Amino acid sequence: MKILAAQINPTIGDLDGNTRKIIDVIKEAKSKKVDIVLFPELTICGYAPEDLVLHNSFIDGMQQRLEQIIRASSGIAVVVGLVRRNLFSGEKDLFNSVAVIDNGTLLGFQDKWLLPTYDVFNERRYFEPGQDTRVWALAGKRVGIIICEDIWQHAGYVDLTNYPRDPVQELEKYHPDILLNASASPYQFQKPDVRIKVCQKASKTLKCPVVLCCQVGANDQIIFDGYSIYVDKNQNLCKLGKACEEDLMYIDTEAGSCNVPFEYDVLGDLYKALVLGVRDYFHKQEFTKACLGLSGGIDSALVACIAKDALGAENVLGISMPSQFTSEQSKEDAKNLATNLGIDFIELPIERTFESMKKTLNPYFEGKEEDVTEENMQARIRSVFIMAFSNKHGYIVLSSGNKSETAMGYCTLYGDMSGGLGVIGDVVKTRVYDLCRWYNKKHKKDVIPSTVIEKAPSAELRPDQKDLDSLPDYQIVDHVLEGYVEDYLRVDNIAEKYKIPIETVLNLVRKIHQAEYKRRQGAPVLRVSKKSFGIGRQYPIVQKWM
Amino acid sequence: MKILAAQINPTIGDLDGNTRKIIDVIKEAKSKKVDIVLFPELTICGYAPEDLVLHNSFIDGMQQRLEQIIRASSGIAVVVGLVRRNLFSGEKDLFNSVAVIDNGTLLGFQDKWLLPTYDVFNERRYFEPGQDTRVWALAGKRVGIIICEDIWQHAGYVDLTNYPRDPVQELEKYHPDILLNASASPYQFQKPDVRIKVCQKASKTLKCPVVLCCQVGANDQIIFDGYSIYVDKNQNLCKLGKACEEDLMYIDTEAGSCNVPFEYDVLGDLYKALVLGVRDYFHKQEFTKACLGLSGGIDSALVACIAKDALGAENVLGISMPSQFTSEQSKEDAKNLATNLGIDFIELPIERTFESMKKTLNPYFEGKEEDVTEENMQARIRSVFIMAFSNKHGYIVLSSGNKSETAMGYCTLYGDMSGGLGVIGDVVKTRVYDLCRWYNKKHKKDVIPSTVIEKAPSAELRPDQKDLDSLPDYQIVDHVLEGYVEDYLRVDNIAEKYKIPIETVLNLVRKIHQAEYKRRQGAPVLRVSKKSFGIGRQYPIVQKWM
Repeated sequence: MKILAAQINPTIGDLDGNTRKIIDVIKEAKSKKVDIVLFPELTICGYAPEDLVLHNSFIDGMQQRLEQIIRASSGIAVVVGLVRRNLFSGEKDLFNSVAVIDNGTLLGFQDKWLLPTYDVFNERRYFEPGQDTRVWALAGKRVGIIICEDIWQHAGYVDLTNYPRDPVQELEKYHPDILLNASASPYQFQKPDVRIKVCQKASKTLKCPVVLCCQVGANDQIIFDGYSIYVDKNQNLCKLGKACEEDLMYIDTEAGSCNVPFEYDVLGDLYKALVLGVRDYFHKQEFTKACLGLSGGIDSALVACIAKDALGAENVLGISMPSQFTSEQSKEDAKNLATNLGIDFIELPIERTFESMKKTLNPYFEGKEEDVTEENMQARIRSVFIMAFSNKHGYIVLSSGNKSETAMGYCTLYGDMSGGLGVIGDVVKTRVYDLCRWYNKKHKKDVIPSTVIEKAPSAELRPDQKDLDSLPDYQIVDHVLEGYVEDYLRVDNIAEKYKIPIETVLNLVRKIHQAEYKRRQGAPVLRVSKKSFGIGRQYPIVQKWM
Repeated sequence: MKILAAQINPTIGDLDGNTRKIIDVIKEAKSKKVDIVLFPELTICGYAPEDLVLHNSFIDGMQQRLEQIIRASSGIAVVVGLVRRNLFSGEKDLFNSVAVIDNGTLLGFQDKWLLPTYDVFNERRYFEPGQDTRVWALAGKRVGIIICEDIWQHAGYVDLTNYPRDPVQELEKYHPDILLNASASPYQFQKPDVRIKVCQKASKTLKCPVVLCCQVGANDQIIFDGYSIYVDKNQNLCKLGKACEEDLMYIDTEAGSCNVPFEYDVLGDLYKALVLGVRDYFHKQEFTKACLGLSGGIDSALVACIAKDALGAENVLGISMPSQFTSEQSKEDAKNLATNLGIDFIELPIERTFESMKKTLNPYFEGKEEDVTEENMQARIRSVFIMAFSNKHGYIVLSSGNKSETAMGYCTLYGDMSGGLGVIGDVVKTRVYDLCRWYNKKHKKDVIPSTVIEKAPSAELRPDQKDLDSLPDYQIVDHVLEGYVEDYLRVDNIAEKYKIPIETVLNLVRKIHQAEYKRRQGAPVLRVSKKSFGIGRQYPIVQKWM
């Protein structure tokens, strides 16, 4: 049997564009004598459409596009994802579903059973769980079809949920010849190898090959990294879709034994995911040009590299906005980085504006020491300048805050937190260093000047300021982030696990909660970790637990 | 039977403070010979605790506080809300529950059956639905106990959900003598009268009195307006808790027939809710002082009134920040308003800073016309000034954007959208006018200068600018908001219902979607309508549906 796992990149809500793409793939599959084309979850509307599905005309629109797809499917079988109405009983009146089409006829729908409602997933808000399963007669075989999460419970890799049913187990009695899974599985650091294990486990139970077709592309903050999977009936990994790009993965189940080695490039994949996140944020909105503040520090250096790789050097503008506290080294580092990357570069000094504003405020600030107020003012003046460039010349602003400083609130609301997209807001500081070193190593030269990597981190908002004046070593901050935010450990367990004094842990955990109000208004952050701030993490601003 | 519906205002996560409050109420109830004290939903942690419930130590903390409450309950029955662990099967390992305590003994738990997962509610993210119900023997009576949403399905007032079970119906066979409901039911424009109907419907089916005890107070964006309810077995409304304040509502079910008239002050209640929203946002964080930009326009005028009533005139600072485009009338209006309210007032001209920044940008903007860039710059410079006041003097900034302009994107990100709290961000412009007129009428004088109410709305960011240059009449905008955002109507139906050209409707709907990226970073907005931007409305930024 010949199967095409069509790892495509839909745009949310672009029913026409996505349908054109689906029909083009079907045409190509026919020309290659494919038996079944398998598309990702919610193909017609893209995953996740969120509250768009609450509009009747949106659901009607998908139904109309499905009819076009059915008409385009003569002589081939197609499994394509969409939202459909639940006409039966149940809490919610929609299903997350796939249409099963054979030779121009709709055989029926397979609804998703297991509806993730944790972290970034919100499916119980919209969908009723499917109840039934079966095998479908396609290309003379018994084909089991399930959707994304449906395969995860069986391998025990589900988060914060214990589904009472297990679709893989329940399919066992039908003895499928093959299992197909239509997925939209977000990238997260070190996740792809887990996805393979999940497929192998289902293959082992059902004694059949498994094909998992993943959506690829970024939609707002969530990045889908592709990596579609084909494991044969002996659980050998036979094919793997490309990382972070569209891929038509052709599978011949009769092709004999196979074994593809999976060597996972942890930092390389993270970098690719971030590039995809930026590119899709821009291109899906038909924006081309980005600008960002280049401070000479390591965070903006990394974001500049990502922006260049996502959008092309000619579309990136680095803006240095020095004040009286900016060192000569930083100014030089910013300029050198821009030169190395071949991006545009300008310098807008903020000192004159800063002094002008202080003069206006002077009558009301007299007798008060300079403090964090004046530091924040500098960051906010920079934001006004950079947003003016955005407004006048159509640049989208990239924000360079990392996860560690955002966690601690060591950042300025409406200042450096401004931007259309927070590129590395889910990357902890120690990993920012890792990525920069990895980047230079990959390019076999110091694209990012070594002085940028080696100097002590500083916001340069007052004389001789260093991050270490206000925060513990980033290694400690990042351990607490892992323990508290990602793994929900108790503070005493964090102290013990990472050998950090419990007062330090408590102090950092309090800072995380206190900065909630800032993060609520920060640029949307590309999610790449197990638990990102913003999407997937919902905490009250006003609370007295910590 | 004597019942106390304890309409209290818990603080999210303040397990100790809330427990003290609960035990104090129990003591007072004992002194008044009450048989049963009924508390609101999730009393011990406050509603909604969101992801705090994912921390084991948070759940353990509630269990410990429950033990204190049990010990304090000798000689009385207590129904108190908390999160407890689900030790049985099911998707989620927590229940939204009430503990039923009698005379110092825990009789058991009643778990919530119907878990709202729509709009601002997210309960399927955390909780497993309860399965069983019963009547509880308390004070010699058969007492039915349910939680919030459990009573709504029966009256058919549930949004976007059709629960397959109906706890009220299922209680019928137990012939309860009374039904108690522990609630946390958010304020929304014109909702309280619906809540009464819901209780009357349950009373009619069960042929018994119904007591519904509501949480009161604001938690971040959601405002709980109180209005606890007692209807007798003949569906007469016998008692109604106070609006927007704590209230111990004593009920004697043997007191004979009764009938309390419910005259709903629609605008008065909306105003009270907004005042409560501001007050709790501040006081629950131990902040006292607010500042806001006073433009001389109607939006900031209304917010200044609300701030004064929430925090006291002595804690409110109005800052006028005129530019060369600010009319003398507006400057005067701002000053007069401050005088009328008795709040502090200062003037910080922005012109010098504006000119300084334009000079810095000049080399890069040469040959370009002045446009929205320079308009946004003014709004952002004001934000830098006002945030400097916040940082230096500890004021929290109130944002004055209304729902109509936020919907249209007729507002400046990091400019007038800045602030700790968006006070009227869920109030449409036409209702802002209604509230201002109502306010002056209530005070029997023009506290808000009549010139503020009568002049044409203008952002005053360029010469002779009027809102009407960029937008249709606000009456039209507000109709489209009602039709599209609140009621999910199709564009053609909106055009027909409100007699607006369909091109206008389409144009406005597109604007709503296009401004999604701005609203994502705006100040959190107090929710007072059926569908607020921000919390309760989840749309992608990048999408091509509209």
